[in-house]
Amino acid sequence: MSRRSLHTPAPDAAALRARLDRAAKAAAAADTDALLVAPGSDLRYLLGQAGGSFERLTTLVVPADGTPALVVPKLEAPGYADVPTAELGVEVLTWVDGVDPYRLVADRLGKPGRVAVSDFTPALHAFALRAVLGDAELTLAGPVVRELRMRKDAAEVDALRAAGAAIDRVHARMGEWLRAGRTEAQVGADITAAIVAEGHTHADFVIVGSGPNGASPHHDVSERVIERGDVVVIDIGGPVAEGYNSDSTRTYAVGEPRDADVAGTYGVLQRAQQAAVDAVRPGVPAESIDAAAREVIEDAGFGEYFIHRTGHGIGLDVHEEPYIVAGNGLPLEPGMAFSIEPGIYQPGRWGARIEDIVVVTESGVEAVNTRPHELVVLDS
Amino acid sequence: MSRRSLHTPAPDAAALRARLDRAAKAAAAADTDALLVAPGSDLRYLLGQAGGSFERLTTLVVPADGTPALVVPKLEAPGYADVPTAELGVEVLTWVDGVDPYRLVADRLGKPGRVAVSDFTPALHAFALRAVLGDAELTLAGPVVRELRMRKDAAEVDALRAAGAAIDRVHARMGEWLRAGRTEAQVGADITAAIVAEGHTHADFVIVGSGPNGASPHHDVSERVIERGDVVVIDIGGPVAEGYNSDSTRTYAVGEPRDADVAGTYGVLQRAQQAAVDAVRPGVPAESIDAAAREVIEDAGFGEYFIHRTGHGIGLDVHEEPYIVAGNGLPLEPGMAFSIEPGIYQPGRWGARIEDIVVVTESGVEAVNTRPHELVVLDS
Repeated sequence: MSRRSLHTPAPDAAALRARLDRAAKAAAAADTDALLVAPGSDLRYLLGQAGGSFERLTTLVVPADGTPALVVPKLEAPGYADVPTAELGVEVLTWVDGVDPYRLVADRLGKPGRVAVSDFTPALHAFALRAVLGDAELTLAGPVVRELRMRKDAAEVDALRAAGAAIDRVHARMGEWLRAGRTEAQVGADITAAIVAEGHTHADFVIVGSGPNGASPHHDVSERVIERGDVVVIDIGGPVAEGYNSDSTRTYAVGEPRDADVAGTYGVLQRAQQAAVDAVRPGVPAESIDAAAREVIEDAGFGEYFIHRTGHGIGLDVHEEPYIVAGNGLPLEPGMAFSIEPGIYQPGRWGARIEDIVVVTESGVEAVNTRPHELVVLDS
Repeated sequence: MSRRSLHTPAPDAAALRARLDRAAKAAAAADTDALLVAPGSDLRYLLGQAGGSFERLTTLVVPADGTPALVVPKLEAPGYADVPTAELGVEVLTWVDGVDPYRLVADRLGKPGRVAVSDFTPALHAFALRAVLGDAELTLAGPVVRELRMRKDAAEVDALRAAGAAIDRVHARMGEWLRAGRTEAQVGADITAAIVAEGHTHADFVIVGSGPNGASPHHDVSERVIERGDVVVIDIGGPVAEGYNSDSTRTYAVGEPRDADVAGTYGVLQRAQQAAVDAVRPGVPAESIDAAAREVIEDAGFGEYFIHRTGHGIGLDVHEEPYIVAGNGLPLEPGMAFSIEPGIYQPGRWGARIEDIVVVTESGVEAVNTRPHELVVLDS
């Protein structure tokens, strides 16, 4: 036996039911007869339970018109016991070994013209569905589901606030761990434990970029021993019980920074991050938030040292729509949530980044992280 | 930023290189020009690193003839820094936003006749590969990769032994937690912590089936308060650092069992499990192991209460080939590893299961779990 999913809190049935209704309407609008949603964060969004994709097919059939059905192996059905299927109007169709589950789905769909599988459906299942769907076009559900997921409802924003508060508590304790003479890996292990202790189910990522390592935005941790005078980028996060993620970066100095240019450069970064936050309001394009940060950094002459996009959407996934990047003309709407995380990286010497998660409100913006943005000098 | 994979030990380069060579030969034997292996346990098997499947394509191209290549987004490449790509003869092809990674793969493949994607490749990527591969047939790599993965090498067997010893240590401590007056969930929480404390990276599943809940083989935990006289099925496991999983079930009684039929029935189960273990040796078909356990149970008149297959393969996945089930004529070979876990379930009253992981050896069988098989009466 195995594969029990540990108990996790789900949104209430009314919120889930509204999401299922929106998904059906979005399928209809996309001229798609049904969405087939595999386990993962798309399924968690719609049923409150992520489940797991294994060799046996599990899929949520969301028809544009009709009753949704969760097709699930009988052995794995107990893992969905917390889903309020009756209240959601979702039929549960269990199947046992010997039954063809793909045929079960095809029979349910009748003679569709177009069916969409969620983006992370395993090829194993997508190919088998393709084989039984005859003349129907089989496409990806990602574009439809992303449109829904990037507009957070009240329960989702609450979960992002809880995640933000939890990671803020970890940053608030950084002085306990970040000291000269310790390795990045040692500091990272302490942070990993604190991420759990402060209310996450686990640590999803822990970046401790000290000195020259801070100039590599995707460094994680290393055996480098932190020295007095180092600037250290700490970028950390993970999911809270509801599945929504935290992601926050602060930059620290261990004693006074050895490089004379740190204070001036950091001031530019801080202004850039604030400019981007201040630019957020409904109706402005996502790319304008990137431009707002980039303009401050470029005007100060550091443009070539800001080598990534300004941010990414966040929710049940750490990276999701909307991306805050040049070329994304998507107008922001209330309920969209994303990171604002410009950085300036001086190769071989030091780097700095400031990252908060923000949510678009009816009138502007709310940051879910509230730790100060100043360079925090830890006098170790 | 985010998505750092935490450091994990990998097999040595020689073992990985041998696996890559076997994969190329198996592709050739299946008349397949290349395997495209997505992040997950298949990738961990070949590179020692599972990585993660996200919206940007990562895939290991294993040609039947030629140099393997890891295609990976430049931003995610640091997550593969521990892979000894030079020693493995694997080229690393990083790509940045703006480049079409599917075209990169297609160009690498030339004009293939048949290409296979690993079973858990996200549809997002499989569909896009399908679109650029022209006339090539796109199939699943599962049948090819499964053939390799079900024959464990020495390092893999060592990791399974370590996992077995770790879960045995948890079972040895059961008396600390399993007592009348506590809920299954409370006991489960203690077991979950102990699974980590005794050497797993996390708990993958924790079943505490007390009294009537023990009669449901896929029960996990509930708020039921354990009573004196209950029979309790404890089925637990998780991966050790190398990625290989433990999975072991023992059945306990909290004080003397209240049901008079427990002792006799349990004796049948114990003989059935032993008969299945004794039947394991190279050359016998997988289904004969199932039959060996089932015959003992049926002969004793309990056939209708043994409601699942006898076992499943185990390794980097908790469930993998070979399945120990009627109809599977696969001849067992040295290095195959699987569970032997018959159960007898008395609906509404109690259930029992005994599960060890065993490995087929040159001459017979080795069990990686060594806890006694008797019903353990905890006198709480």
